[in-house]
This record gives sequence, structure tokens and C-alpha cells, in this order.
Amino acid sequence: MTKNTDPPLFGAIEAGGTKFLCAIGNQAGDIVDEARFETRMPHSTLAEVRDYFESSRAKFGVLTALGVGAFGPLDLNPASPTFGFITSTPKAGWNNTDLAGTLGRELQLPVSLDTDVNAAALGELRWGAPSLESLAYVTVGTGIGVGVVHHGRPVHGLMHPEIGHVSVRRHPDDLGFAGACPFHGDCLEGLASGKALVARTGRPLSDAPPDDPIWVIEADYLGQLCALLLLCHSPQRILIGGGVMQSRLYPDIRQRMLYWLKDYVSAPEIKSPGYITAPALSTRSGIMGALHLAHSAGPPEVT
Amino acid sequence: MTKNTDPPLFGAIEAGGTKFLCAIGNQAGDIVDEARFETRMPHSTLAEVRDYFESSRAKFGVLTALGVGAFGPLDLNPASPTFGFITSTPKAGWNNTDLAGTLGRELQLPVSLDTDVNAAALGELRWGAPSLESLAYVTVGTGIGVGVVHHGRPVHGLMHPEIGHVSVRRHPDDLGFAGACPFHGDCLEGLASGKALVARTGRPLSDAPPDDPIWVIEADYLGQLCALLLLCHSPQRILIGGGVMQSRLYPDIRQRMLYWLKDYVSAPEIKSPGYITAPALSTRSGIMGALHLAHSAGPPEVT
Repeated sequence: MTKNTDPPLFGAIEAGGTKFLCAIGNQAGDIVDEARFETRMPHSTLAEVRDYFESSRAKFGVLTALGVGAFGPLDLNPASPTFGFITSTPKAGWNNTDLAGTLGRELQLPVSLDTDVNAAALGELRWGAPSLESLAYVTVGTGIGVGVVHHGRPVHGLMHPEIGHVSVRRHPDDLGFAGACPFHGDCLEGLASGKALVARTGRPLSDAPPDDPIWVIEADYLGQLCALLLLCHSPQRILIGGGVMQSRLYPDIRQRMLYWLKDYVSAPEIKSPGYITAPALSTRSGIMGALHLAHSAGPPEVT
Repeated sequence: MTKNTDPPLFGAIEAGGTKFLCAIGNQAGDIVDEARFETRMPHSTLAEVRDYFESSRAKFGVLTALGVGAFGPLDLNPASPTFGFITSTPKAGWNNTDLAGTLGRELQLPVSLDTDVNAAALGELRWGAPSLESLAYVTVGTGIGVGVVHHGRPVHGLMHPEIGHVSVRRHPDDLGFAGACPFHGDCLEGLASGKALVARTGRPLSDAPPDDPIWVIEADYLGQLCALLLLCHSPQRILIGGGVMQSRLYPDIRQRMLYWLKDYVSAPEIKSPGYITAPALSTRSGIMGALHLAHSAGPPEVT
């Protein structure tokens, strides 16, 4: 058992569509333990998660709070009867799952929940770029997700942003492909996600020959996204990660962003290679953001 | 002179391209005096503004702070050497004008500056919809401007958003018009602003016959804007005002927003007529927001 004088420990969960990554860490960001569980049906995966955190008590003592960054859509409105639920997800079995409520009740901990991408944006701001006040975190994987932090807080409102589904203008060399989004067809996710790339060319971007026009097309769509983020959110930095990203894309995305802005936004920072870059925490943005979420979760339980 | 026991008074300025509206009010939002000055060259207009607030002292005592909502672009980065400046504006004579610094030095008051649309969004949130935490304020006039407030604070970052210049998809009945934006041609402002409407049809929207296709086209572009705002910011309400707006547009804009979202955003609130509506404060959003900005401007001066 930890002594009372030890710094408090927090639980963190990165709840993804294929795995739940669970961690225990402190306010300084040190992770003392970690485990991952396959995302199966809610009752079995959430039971494994609960058992992990419960059994951790023998070694680490009682945790202070739990932070969760989860796939969505999520209900983040505290006034809603389904606050803390995963709502209309296409992930089989997870539709209408009381994620935050179940974990909070079973572990008797205050829970702070946000989207996976908002958590990742928060993790990057806290531990990757602590001098900034705002940033956008983009992940280009099977889908496209974007988290945004302003004044140190993730953006919520009626729901949470779904920036992956914005409209973009078709690249002139990409008029034949209908798009892969089941809702919008050729929205950004429908044109530039990993799923769209495979649907269009039969292979992932990493397998495309260096001179394949798909590189130019992909950089253009992600450049349009960055121009849109600048116009809509004016983040101090844009981080792009995810399984689709390849290092050669970053300079081309920046160039296409500047093309679409047409010199309307005059901040010199946006011309720097550091403005659009890979996440500083690499694949750890989400779990570190979940840990940071835990720090802001309600008052500590009386133990 | 006011007595020490009187509630503190604040100065507010809505700095527009054609007039500067100046007001004096208290924390409850009561305006006790008001004046307006034509926007001429900076030195003469700012001198009139200064004289107005200076001469107000005899009647109202020393003000506590000044809030300013201004046309832009503005430098809102406290770390920048041109913090508080109007930067690259096309408004003749106002390029690179130290607006906040000049007023603060001459009136010896702390100044809180934001964009005209962010100030208006703040005014609507504070006095029009105090139960909300987030909203978007859209003005469709000569240009198109959008202010956004999250967690009660206007959105800033590297600069401030410029959402009027986002890309939209062309309406199929509007392919012949090149667009009126000097930067982007057919961005939203280039297609749907008052300037664009006159450039396309030779008359303002209010003069168009009821069955003119321009009504359908305008509602579609503003519906695309609302869909984009929902995807990018998820505001709890969208307010649309400005000289171009006509009451018949609101239901059509909502319908086109829903069309573009394709049921992807499932919040029932967005189907309500109250989700997209006229500003509650009508044309007073900006000056009331400037007054609210003043309340957050630095510590009160020692008098």
C-alpha cells in the first residue's frame, strides 16, 4: 500500500475500437503500470478493466480519479440523461453504453470522459507543448478524427466536434472515386482516410509507389483540412498522426494548406515546418491525455 | 462624480468600418451613456473617442476598464510586439494601427480587445442566452463574420478564426458566378455575402422577388456554414444576424444544414427552430459584448 505522503495516483484509459489501454500514473505524468485489453463486448471488456484497476489497489493504493478518452460519439452534456454514454456508434455491441457511469460506479471513482482525439490533444498540450494554449490533434487512420483544445480545455458544446466529416473540394485528379463515408460519401474521411485509400487504390498509402498521384491527392485533402482548422480554430499548432501518415506528407500538406489559404492568414508561424508536425508523444498522446483528464475529474473520493 | 459606493462603470467600444459606437455601462449591463463617431482616419476617430470618454468623467467618474470589439484582422497574441493592433486590414488608413495600446495609454485604462464577432458572441452568451456555455454568432453583411464562444470564452489561438472564408460546395444553379472574394474568389464570403449578392444579381437579397432562385442558393450556402459550425465547433446555438438576413431564410438554412449533415449528428436540438435563430440582442450584441469584455480587462486602476 502507498503511504499517505505518496503523491496521488490516477487511472487512465484510452478506449479504442480494437483495444482498451489502461494505465496508472501520477500528476507529473509518470506511468507506474499499464495493461491492454481487447475491445470485445462491453460487459466483458469493462469487467476486465474493472478487475485490472481493482487489483492494482494492493500494489498502488486507492486511486484518486479516472480519466477516459474514448471512441464515440459520446454524450458529454452533464445535463443529459445519457451523460457519459457512448451513443450511436457503429461498433457492434457498444451502441448506447454507459461507459463513464459503469466505470465510476464499479470503481467508486470520479470519472472525467472525453473523446479519444480531445484526450490526445490535451495530452499533447500538457506534456508535448506546455507553452501553448491551443492546438489541433489530427489522426488519420481507418477514419479521420480531430481534437481541439482552446485555453487549455477541449472543445465541447452541444456534442463534440466531428471535424473528420467536413466537406472538401475534390482534387481534379480524383473525380472518379465516389468516396467511402457511409454518411456523406465524399467528405474528408470519405476521401482521405485509410479506409478510403484502400477502397480507391486497393492498397494502403504506405504501399503506393513514390510517384503515384495518390500522394499528391492525399496531401491536398489534408492541406484543405489544415486550412479549415486555421480558419475555424486558429490553433497554435497542428499535429497529425495515425497509421496512414508518412513523413513525406508533412511538407506537402503545409504547402497545400498555404495554397488554399491564398495568403489570407498572414501569421508567419504557419510557414514554419514546426506548425504542422507529428505528435510529440507519438502513439502515447491518447493515454497521456486520459491521465491528464483524470487530474481534472471531480473532487477526490474520501478513502 | 460618482461616489465610492456606486457600482463601477466600464467603457465599451464597438469599432466598425463605418462607425465607432461608444458606451458607458455597469456590470449588470445597464448602459448609462452612448455616442457614435464616424470611422475616418485613426488619429481623428481615436481622438474623438478619447475626448468622449475623458469628458464623461465629470458626469460618471473614473471608469474601471475598457472593452473593445473591433473589425480586424487583429493581433490578439499577448506575446507579440503588435499585440492589440489592427493588422492587415483593407480599410484605408487603419493598417497596422495600435488600437488597444493607444486607447489604453490615452485613457489610462486597462483594455480588453477582441474581434467584433467574438465580442458579439460574448454579448449574446452573457445577456441573450446566459444558460449556455457555447454559441456561434454569424453576421451576414457586406462580408461574413463568425464569432465563437466555448466555456464562456471567445476562441483565439495563433490569431482568431476567419470562418467567413471557408470553402463551400457550389450550388448546382450557381456555377456561372466567379465569386466576389478578392483572396479566394468563391469562398463562403465570396458567394453569400451582401457584396457577392449584389455582384451576382445587381441588387440586394431583400429586393429579390420571392421566387427568385437566389433565395434557395443563399440558404444552401448558409446551411453549409451551419453544418460546418456543428462539425467543427458543436455550438449549443447558432445566431445569424446582419443586414443581408431576412426572416424567411432561417427555416431554409436549418433544412439545408440538416441536408448536409446527412443524419450524422444526432442531437435532437438541431432540428428545433430555436437552434438557428436571430441574435437575441438584435443589433446590440456587439456593444454589449464589448461591455462584457471590459469586465474581464485586467485589474481596476487605482484612482
